[in-house]
Amino acid sequence: MSEFWDDTRIERLGDDHLRANITDRWSVNGIPNGGYLMSIAARALREVLSHHDPLTITGHYVEKAAVGPADLLVEVIREGNTVSTAALRLVQEGKERVRFTATYGDLADASGVTWIGDKPPAIEKEKCLTSPRFLAIHERVELLFSPATADWLRGKTGENMGHELMAYFRDGTEPDVLSLPFFADCVPPTTFTKFGAVGWVPTLELTVHVRAQPAPGLLTGRFQTRYLINGLMEEDGELWDSNGELVALSRQLAKYRGGNL
Amino acid sequence: MSEFWDDTRIERLGDDHLRANITDRWSVNGIPNGGYLMSIAARALREVLSHHDPLTITGHYVEKAAVGPADLLVEVIREGNTVSTAALRLVQEGKERVRFTATYGDLADASGVTWIGDKPPAIEKEKCLTSPRFLAIHERVELLFSPATADWLRGKTGENMGHELMAYFRDGTEPDVLSLPFFADCVPPTTFTKFGAVGWVPTLELTVHVRAQPAPGLLTGRFQTRYLINGLMEEDGELWDSNGELVALSRQLAKYRGGNL
Repeated sequence: MSEFWDDTRIERLGDDHLRANITDRWSVNGIPNGGYLMSIAARALREVLSHHDPLTITGHYVEKAAVGPADLLVEVIREGNTVSTAALRLVQEGKERVRFTATYGDLADASGVTWIGDKPPAIEKEKCLTSPRFLAIHERVELLFSPATADWLRGKTGENMGHELMAYFRDGTEPDVLSLPFFADCVPPTTFTKFGAVGWVPTLELTVHVRAQPAPGLLTGRFQTRYLINGLMEEDGELWDSNGELVALSRQLAKYRGGNL
Repeated sequence: MSEFWDDTRIERLGDDHLRANITDRWSVNGIPNGGYLMSIAARALREVLSHHDPLTITGHYVEKAAVGPADLLVEVIREGNTVSTAALRLVQEGKERVRFTATYGDLADASGVTWIGDKPPAIEKEKCLTSPRFLAIHERVELLFSPATADWLRGKTGENMGHELMAYFRDGTEPDVLSLPFFADCVPPTTFTKFGAVGWVPTLELTVHVRAQPAPGLLTGRFQTRYLINGLMEEDGELWDSNGELVALSRQLAKYRGGNL
């Protein structure tokens, strides 16, 4: 039993036509989370493509999605020997809500040079703060915020825009390649740490690079914004597995509405 | 007279059908640079969409492009009040070479909070090293490498993977919103600084966020790779204008072929 797997289940109606049922269990204020939608798309693309893992997947969020059925219309752009590329339209009530574009490969077959130039934040799990569970999504994913970046949970604002945290599914589902897009977007906006926990930060575009299959256990994440310019911001994410291996990088472009400076 | 503007000129054949002529002047070993192709796509999308600036543009490079004519086939995904989103297929000889997907807006109309959490590298122009001009592309764009990251130009390898540099068009063309994708991809691979100036690093996917209209003058750039894992790497770029304002962020996923560790 896994809520996440139940709620990203794909029905294949034809070669390039699949269907998903977007549930209300991964929502923020009633709107399905963008990372959840990306994990649905990633699972559908795995069904269609001859490669297994979303090396890079990009979503352009053009309309709010809604809870309910969604058609997933795949266009294979190129199937190669080592990678394949496709687009996927997530359509509800005849209207495209998200355009995904992705290149898949097989992480298990990857070989070549490895060099790691950074490391995960050091977080003591016992000292972490949890976030209030007022959103549907946070009833299902637990976020443990490092005290180093959690002043906002004590009603204060910090110097920087960012979170260091640990994350896991409450029902014990282990992280995998296809849930990493979800984890990359399940975190409160980085603006909360700088301007307080108010304001709506809709994603225009989100790209996730899945770099490795995660080991079982908690994920460690660092999410950071350095440039908020005239209400537009990037949010950069890094996810490491319980062995301290980098498993995903993410970047999104989002609008920040509200807040004081 | 501007070589860059001449070589990104767009001919409009229909509502959604445009044509470009890819010249041999922006090539690396005979292969047109991926950022050059993105600047062509960005210029075509400006023609079609009701918004002016590529807030975010992603290219999936599925086949090598070639010098010569290219058809640019646009699909408008959504035209909204403040942003519009479209896909563009770059096709040569009936075969798709690159899939671009972009969300456009109007940077001049952007308003909202600004907060800047980082700054450009401090580079003394007079102390910079230039790169050898053995590639067509570097006859047209001058790169001035900061001594801090230029050991590779002296035949040594450094601790980290990355460049700090300044860049400008040799013919005096000033940078603008549509040339920023080119500048984000005109730099030698970051692997050169760590493993020496050998090896081929093809881009799988490149995303550029244009964050502001650049002021005239030299651009300052920082390009960095932190995670090379089994031959796959990200390359993160930041570009600032001559006033020290951030004007673009980029990230690509690339394959590293060759090199020793």
